[in-house]
Amino acid sequence: MTDYHPTPRTRVHRRSERGVYDRDVVHKIIDEALVCHVGFVLTGEPRVLPTTILRIDEDVYIHGSTNNGLLTALAAGAPACITVTLIDSIVAGRSGFGCSMDYRSAVIYATAETVAESDKERIMDAFVQDIIPGHKVRRPTQSELDATLILRFPLGEVSAKVRDCGVVDVESDYELDLWAGIIPLKLSAGPAKSDGRLKPGTRIPDFANSYRR
Amino acid sequence: MTDYHPTPRTRVHRRSERGVYDRDVVHKIIDEALVCHVGFVLTGEPRVLPTTILRIDEDVYIHGSTNNGLLTALAAGAPACITVTLIDSIVAGRSGFGCSMDYRSAVIYATAETVAESDKERIMDAFVQDIIPGHKVRRPTQSELDATLILRFPLGEVSAKVRDCGVVDVESDYELDLWAGIIPLKLSAGPAKSDGRLKPGTRIPDFANSYRR
Repeated sequence: MTDYHPTPRTRVHRRSERGVYDRDVVHKIIDEALVCHVGFVLTGEPRVLPTTILRIDEDVYIHGSTNNGLLTALAAGAPACITVTLIDSIVAGRSGFGCSMDYRSAVIYATAETVAESDKERIMDAFVQDIIPGHKVRRPTQSELDATLILRFPLGEVSAKVRDCGVVDVESDYELDLWAGIIPLKLSAGPAKSDGRLKPGTRIPDFANSYRR
Repeated sequence: MTDYHPTPRTRVHRRSERGVYDRDVVHKIIDEALVCHVGFVLTGEPRVLPTTILRIDEDVYIHGSTNNGLLTALAAGAPACITVTLIDSIVAGRSGFGCSMDYRSAVIYATAETVAESDKERIMDAFVQDIIPGHKVRRPTQSELDATLILRFPLGEVSAKVRDCGVVDVESDYELDLWAGIIPLKLSAGPAKSDGRLKPGTRIPDFANSYRR
């Protein structure tokens, strides 16, 4: 599959070697993230909505209550800037200027399409399986589906930025007697805690005790 | 100290029991976070900038290169919506509707003030110590300070949102033979990896091997 095409907004100007338009790289960043931050303009003012994100093929999805004012503003067509950020390491350089982070981020510019009634159950199932793979839930009721707004954003104007080079200090700083290195970070999970009102004999499923992202 | 005052933008409408204006709660969320997402409007379009955040008393700070177009737009006075999000647990309910996350988030509406030359070194030091407590670095050079733009945002129009109630299912769902519970998440660190060009005999400092956030 071809790469995404840079646009004036997605072309990375600073440290342009970090800008990537490769679909696989973008997909992996979105798929690893639990949440995104959706920026948009509401009556001239900036808003940022943190929310879970799901990708299926070349679309991403967010969802929430039909009573959520920020979500309904997006449904009404407010252009969105969706950002996904993963921090991989803290980079401890020999100067403040040399301190940084290794990270992967993706930015998506798009306008929402509202997911049709007939498609809501499938997408809600996909959200559950994306966030908690293997988790079994009862079918949604019609009133639950009615109360849920799901928005789809096509992956068209997209870019990623990746820093993975660790410590890069000023040449003369390598002579200093200072420690420098990276501190890797990861999201770790568990142990799972069962709800206090489980039916007797219900055991914690394996997926809940071996959760990884 | 008194709480922050809700404004039309920071008053939490949905599930208003989750909205908090308590300074300590807001401070702790900001202090635990490594990054924030800064939303603003650039020539009518939404932008979101992920970047490290530092709090000192009743101000938060972000920084970057003087060549960063997004940062300079903020320095020029574009109103910002700064969001900080911490995910504490995945909540696996008995329905898709009952699946959620326990989280803490804070949102700050403010306009940037540019940090004066005379204050830059102190704030840069504070960034290093905030992100890597105990890390020793050489003093910044004038050209490094000149190349760094630091923005300060006062904490005035601020709110937090906290969900920490775990599984809350529809009453009739508690009869179902389905597992439900929470999967706690945390950011874990290490082990630290030394830069390949350390001076012989430089050991990994304790702070780097016992990093916690």
